[in-house]
Amino acid sequence: MKLKIALLPGDGIGPEVITQAVSCLQAVEDIFGHQFIFAEAPVGATAMDNGGNPLPADTLALCKRSDAVLFGAIGDPKYDNDPAAKVRPEQGLLKLRKELELFSNIRPVQVFPTLIENSPLRKEIINGTDFVIFRELTGGIYFGEKKRSEDGRTASDLCIYSEEEISRIAHLAFKAAKGRRKKLTLVDKANVLESSRLWRSVVTKIAESYPEVTLNYLFVDNAAMQLILNPSQFDVILTENMFGDILSDEGSVIGGSIGLLPSASVGEKYAMFEPIHGSFPEGAGKNIANPIAAILSVAMLLDHFGLKEETNAVIKAVNRSLKDGIVTPDLNAKSKYGTDDVGHFIASQI
Amino acid sequence: MKLKIALLPGDGIGPEVITQAVSCLQAVEDIFGHQFIFAEAPVGATAMDNGGNPLPADTLALCKRSDAVLFGAIGDPKYDNDPAAKVRPEQGLLKLRKELELFSNIRPVQVFPTLIENSPLRKEIINGTDFVIFRELTGGIYFGEKKRSEDGRTASDLCIYSEEEISRIAHLAFKAAKGRRKKLTLVDKANVLESSRLWRSVVTKIAESYPEVTLNYLFVDNAAMQLILNPSQFDVILTENMFGDILSDEGSVIGGSIGLLPSASVGEKYAMFEPIHGSFPEGAGKNIANPIAAILSVAMLLDHFGLKEETNAVIKAVNRSLKDGIVTPDLNAKSKYGTDDVGHFIASQI
Ligand SMILES: CC(C)[C@H](C(=O)O)[C@@H](O)C(=O)O
Ligand SMILES: CC(C)[C@H](C(=O)O)[C@@H](O)C(=O)O
Repeated sequence: MKLKIALLPGDGIGPEVITQAVSCLQAVEDIFGHQFIFAEAPVGATAMDNGGNPLPADTLALCKRSDAVLFGAIGDPKYDNDPAAKVRPEQGLLKLRKELELFSNIRPVQVFPTLIENSPLRKEIINGTDFVIFRELTGGIYFGEKKRSEDGRTASDLCIYSEEEISRIAHLAFKAAKGRRKKLTLVDKANVLESSRLWRSVVTKIAESYPEVTLNYLFVDNAAMQLILNPSQFDVILTENMFGDILSDEGSVIGGSIGLLPSASVGEKYAMFEPIHGSFPEGAGKNIANPIAAILSVAMLLDHFGLKEETNAVIKAVNRSLKDGIVTPDLNAKSKYGTDDVGHFIASQI
Repeated sequence: MKLKIALLPGDGIGPEVITQAVSCLQAVEDIFGHQFIFAEAPVGATAMDNGGNPLPADTLALCKRSDAVLFGAIGDPKYDNDPAAKVRPEQGLLKLRKELELFSNIRPVQVFPTLIENSPLRKEIINGTDFVIFRELTGGIYFGEKKRSEDGRTASDLCIYSEEEISRIAHLAFKAAKGRRKKLTLVDKANVLESSRLWRSVVTKIAESYPEVTLNYLFVDNAAMQLILNPSQFDVILTENMFGDILSDEGSVIGGSIGLLPSASVGEKYAMFEPIHGSFPEGAGKNIANPIAAILSVAMLLDHFGLKEETNAVIKAVNRSLKDGIVTPDLNAKSKYGTDDVGHFIASQI
């Protein structure tokens, strides 16, 4: 297979983990006889440093003519805490999602048996946890109208959803549930929000086309509790943008390390793959960042293009590194392995 | 002291726990020589069953001529899952908050040493946890304009805040922090929301009047992680309505039992006290509900009126029941004590 892959390493530890992800892709290329054509472009604070725009036009154009985007991380503290700032690195990411119409953010949460002791939750609680969150990514309060009154003393954000926006991600989530344990939980706040009531009615209707999947409903406040009290009850969680932001970060700590979790953001035309850990600026340039989340994002990329064998080869190589303890210090404080050691080891095992 | 206390037992287990809370108040009345005048009124599903209105005018009037409201719980599954329903029990609670201008919801989260094993989190993680959440309760997306397009296919909710709404609760939170460990964490999503940017600038300005309090900022997604990874870092958390709904429920499971957690909702003129556990309809009428959250809500009520000694007497009596194992089955599966046994024991210890 021939794939054009845009690399957007971004800020902080992004470049370091993307380097390792690329060497794994190159190992797959060699062994399975594919052709991956890489092209790199700036995004986020890095792009702002060189010109002010967190998503330069050239970067967006590159993404649009690629088959997939591999994204590192975004955000730099020097651009935070300035409420008056007109441009923020995060806008680059939000604009990218919108322009590529990546309406579905998919985040699997799994517990790796070798890491069960790293979780802040008790072993008995997290045993068997294996769910995936489908978060709507291009609608809701993130993209609704933002207003500030003339005197600056009132501010508002509009949370708005259409039937179409809900139904396209709902279909993806139901299809995923069908191929898994056949349970879908819709998380909303239908006892308070009109937009949630629309979600509930649209999703309830779509459920009729997936009779093998059991649909249940959970209010977001209850979901925030259930994720900790009993995470193994979940199979597929479907929710809107802001609730998904909060719950997927909450869910990400269950497995014991955010350094392991990949994500995919997909739309009709484009797809982007991204570790969920963020830019971790304090760790940048120190060769300590865990490359596994980026490498598992590569696995999601391969899977997206139907390359099952290749996907499994990457996952197996990652499991090997976890079992053999070839891991960065976040997983084992005594470890002497750096980002590059772990990346090289995994690439060599593919 | 003479206090008029409106009792709104509400739905599910509400009436059972309020009965026990009242006997504790009566014990305080006797021992400390106060005069508490109780009057009861219907609210929620219970009120809807008898007339359709989840907050009857008489109930609201009673609250307005009382010094404090003691609230049980609201919600009944028979009124859920009907997205087309025009009236819901929850509206009774929302209307009550709005009418009484209870803009500040205060929820302390503490770990009781005797119950540390009940937490889904590891002991090392939760040791020393002791924080309080100040959730804005009468603004934001809960009360902003709700719209449905004519064809019903688009729905929206407006999240709107004014400087005044932010500043009045911020002052309460800073004052609380001043009397505690002097740390205030503002939780928002200022990298995305205009309303959050207003929160950040208003709170940053108010912080200047409280130089002894350290202010820091956390994005809500990160806060959802930090609550689990390291809950003891928090002292006072301040946040808007919807984030507060989610985070305070998430925080409520840290201590190992939601059956222990009280709350206060206060405004300039009125104050309401409420266990946070909700109506738990499956448990209603079985004499198994934990009355401690309601009894600790009574402690918050007494504290609100400056009755320190009385407050401590109630807290001490609760700790006695926990130490002696006079607890309901949610805390100890082998326990044979019912709601009334635990309530009587605590009242007798005051
Ligand atoms: C950086 C930020 C704008 C972003 C979001 O809120 O969507 C991030 O938290 C995420 O979840 O990808
Ligand atoms: C019942 C519901 C409307 C309410 C809320 O969302 O505020 C509840 O969850 C709470 O936190 O008191």
